[in-house]
Amino acid sequence: VQKSLVRDGQIKNALVALSEALDSRAILTGEAITERYSRDWSGDYVGEPAAVLRPSDTSEVAAAVRICRDACLPIIPQGGHTGLVGGATPDAAGQIVLSLERMNRIRALDSLSMTMVVEAGCILQTAKEAALAQGCLFPLTLGAQGSCQIGGNVATNAGGLNVLRYGMMRNLVLGLEAVLADGRVFSDLRALRKNNTGLDLKQLFIGTEGTLGIVTAAALRLYPQPRWVETLWLSAESITGIMALYDHCRREAGELLSAFELITAPCLELALELDPNSPLPGDVARFPAHALIEIASSGGPDLRPWVEELVASMFENGLAQTGLMAHSTAQAAALWRIREIMVEAQQRRGLHLRTDISVPISAIPLFAARIDEVLAQALPGVKVLTYGHVGDGNLHINALPPAHLQGSAFRPWLLPLTRKINEVVDAFGGSISAEHGIGITKRTALEERLAPVDRELMHAMKATLDPDGLLSPGRILVV
Amino acid sequence: VQKSLVRDGQIKNALVALSEALDSRAILTGEAITERYSRDWSGDYVGEPAAVLRPSDTSEVAAAVRICRDACLPIIPQGGHTGLVGGATPDAAGQIVLSLERMNRIRALDSLSMTMVVEAGCILQTAKEAALAQGCLFPLTLGAQGSCQIGGNVATNAGGLNVLRYGMMRNLVLGLEAVLADGRVFSDLRALRKNNTGLDLKQLFIGTEGTLGIVTAAALRLYPQPRWVETLWLSAESITGIMALYDHCRREAGELLSAFELITAPCLELALELDPNSPLPGDVARFPAHALIEIASSGGPDLRPWVEELVASMFENGLAQTGLMAHSTAQAAALWRIREIMVEAQQRRGLHLRTDISVPISAIPLFAARIDEVLAQALPGVKVLTYGHVGDGNLHINALPPAHLQGSAFRPWLLPLTRKINEVVDAFGGSISAEHGIGITKRTALEERLAPVDRELMHAMKATLDPDGLLSPGRILVV
Repeated sequence: VQKSLVRDGQIKNALVALSEALDSRAILTGEAITERYSRDWSGDYVGEPAAVLRPSDTSEVAAAVRICRDACLPIIPQGGHTGLVGGATPDAAGQIVLSLERMNRIRALDSLSMTMVVEAGCILQTAKEAALAQGCLFPLTLGAQGSCQIGGNVATNAGGLNVLRYGMMRNLVLGLEAVLADGRVFSDLRALRKNNTGLDLKQLFIGTEGTLGIVTAAALRLYPQPRWVETLWLSAESITGIMALYDHCRREAGELLSAFELITAPCLELALELDPNSPLPGDVARFPAHALIEIASSGGPDLRPWVEELVASMFENGLAQTGLMAHSTAQAAALWRIREIMVEAQQRRGLHLRTDISVPISAIPLFAARIDEVLAQALPGVKVLTYGHVGDGNLHINALPPAHLQGSAFRPWLLPLTRKINEVVDAFGGSISAEHGIGITKRTALEERLAPVDRELMHAMKATLDPDGLLSPGRILVV
Repeated sequence: VQKSLVRDGQIKNALVALSEALDSRAILTGEAITERYSRDWSGDYVGEPAAVLRPSDTSEVAAAVRICRDACLPIIPQGGHTGLVGGATPDAAGQIVLSLERMNRIRALDSLSMTMVVEAGCILQTAKEAALAQGCLFPLTLGAQGSCQIGGNVATNAGGLNVLRYGMMRNLVLGLEAVLADGRVFSDLRALRKNNTGLDLKQLFIGTEGTLGIVTAAALRLYPQPRWVETLWLSAESITGIMALYDHCRREAGELLSAFELITAPCLELALELDPNSPLPGDVARFPAHALIEIASSGGPDLRPWVEELVASMFENGLAQTGLMAHSTAQAAALWRIREIMVEAQQRRGLHLRTDISVPISAIPLFAARIDEVLAQALPGVKVLTYGHVGDGNLHINALPPAHLQGSAFRPWLLPLTRKINEVVDAFGGSISAEHGIGITKRTALEERLAPVDRELMHAMKATLDPDGLLSPGRILVV
């Protein structure tokens, strides 16, 4: 009780100082704190922030951080609330949520240099549209792009559907501005494509989920807009068959292969429940494995005739059994909708298991077979959903509960089944988190896998940059 | 004298310990230390290493580092001796050169996953050939690729001719193995395209020139081999004209634009002295600015007809004044030879000024004009050589001395002229080191430009990872 009273006093004093340093719209407390700030998208994490801060510029962020540090108040930086690992949800009373949502300006866009400078709270879709308006592409493409924010994309090193071609967020960041744990501002927003001057400090803030600093703005790399885009759905007799298709497409299309998504039969079935009007031919449903393929180019000659020949040859030589080449952008969008609707389709089945792993691409067929085996043995009747970005070696191994374990009855199984999956990932030399990050959800699994030297280095970095442990505490590293 | 005797004793004792820990071929002392280990490529730096260590595997590197640390002996890791900033040359008696040259194995190559694992001492050309033998491309392409080594490429974050398309070395590294200052081994050589698990520790060792750890092996990302490659030489009335060509090519060819090099008239003149049999048409020499352009694709339809139309349209609408489209790979190679021969052509003129800067791409014409102005004012008669990777915003602003200041008479001018150039770079928001790194040569210039928070962070990282300051001392940071 004593301790809690001291804490309450600290918070009260800090709020007085904050109300002097920030404008009136910047501070929410009590009833004004909506679920948006306290609950994550999946509903798996709910917290009670002592206050929500919404600074409007970098100097306000710095001031807020200094005041919180002086009061020993932990800060949870928050973006668009679309994370899947509980990284941005406050987990206890007394934590301060620092939302970047009001810092949403596009500070600069240079279409000849193909660069833009964007604030952390800018919604990804808004940044993409601003680039498009100048004839450029910001390639990061996520299901959540209508709500996720650039700062969160940087802090989580977001991946998505275009990684095969453009890499993850780390590859798209040319410069960064971040507020450190003591309120100092690191700032290098020069939008240079090449800058090789010693330690690349911005790397410290990419993918570290706010534990080493709070990203406030980023200089981003833009690309030419795609000019020719061909979208295919091809079905095969097995995942091995899909991998043969992948190898063929990659050898023939080279880097023009811009997406190659695996969708197994149980995933397709689930998606079609929600989207029965898909343009897929009827016989597709008979096959166990499917690929959604995009071949695209931002210049050069029209790809259509060449892709038509490629598809014909894949049918002729038996690599593909059935499928569809989209004849319009509307049809291409309908094919992508099948892939994108999967998350929602799973969500509607209630509590289910989600993972986000990667393995060497060549290991995918054996890996997927072993996963089926291991999960069927661990929990007979479980429905394994294997899909993902084959070209990146990144699969989502998800699972729906058997009929008798629907809803919360499945909860006790989540951890043991995830452990089983992670053991298979380990056996194939993979990663337990390909793109979603660690957050709260995977920190124990990461801890178990970190080599001692890795753990020591990560803790040493944390101690150097945030000695009081006030930034995103408990994220990534088990304290 | 006392101090020097103590040092001699430490070295002697360390050599005894080293001779027990390493095999007999691993230690060179006295006369056995050739210029290869003590002198850099340009001859600008010459040192006297107390010993040269040539370990044959990672555990020998770790053992050597531990012994050196116990004896307080500073270590200079050394690769292929092709650096341009004195980063790998020992600078005083008592330093230990640690050459990775015997660690030159290719540990693994997976052509479906498009990844390879290579030891630090593997020569870049060897790695490229191994990839090619499996139908893959390792895209890093440097003039020095016949001698530079993968470890050096990682430690300096090497750039080169293909950055526009494939990025710098940082973008090509999937995993890393490095020996830390205390002999611990950091090792994550999983060749995964996506792995998002907190702090990406390997970034600490990329581009940090051996100051935070010694790179011993790397997992590298491979690409499909180029299938269609078209090479053009186009000349224009000005650098502004070249930038209009760049904008047009990039809008039409998109990402198929794989190289776009600017070569100004004084550079071409110099190259043609050494290579008088170039395939260029005679009227090229009349123009002040030229572009060497590559449009390439690793798949899809043949580019030739499309590029022929593109070139014809650029002549028709006046973007290009004269030029040549290579009609054979031999002719393409001859065009590239003009670009590549430039370094040698300058070297033959004796002492000259070299820089390696970057500015926002859109600033290039104004920047280059300002450089001409400033240098002509600072030293009338100086011959400015402006060339480089326009698509990356990376220019080499080099300079030959006026007739009356040939050879060492030019030496006093190097620093003041470089400072003039760097001031213009600053004014345009550029970087004083786009790809060559900092080493010894640019550490003062970097120091002058580092924001206090950047300097503090870099020193904090150094103190955390190498508290005794024994790895590559004096590189990057002024101690």
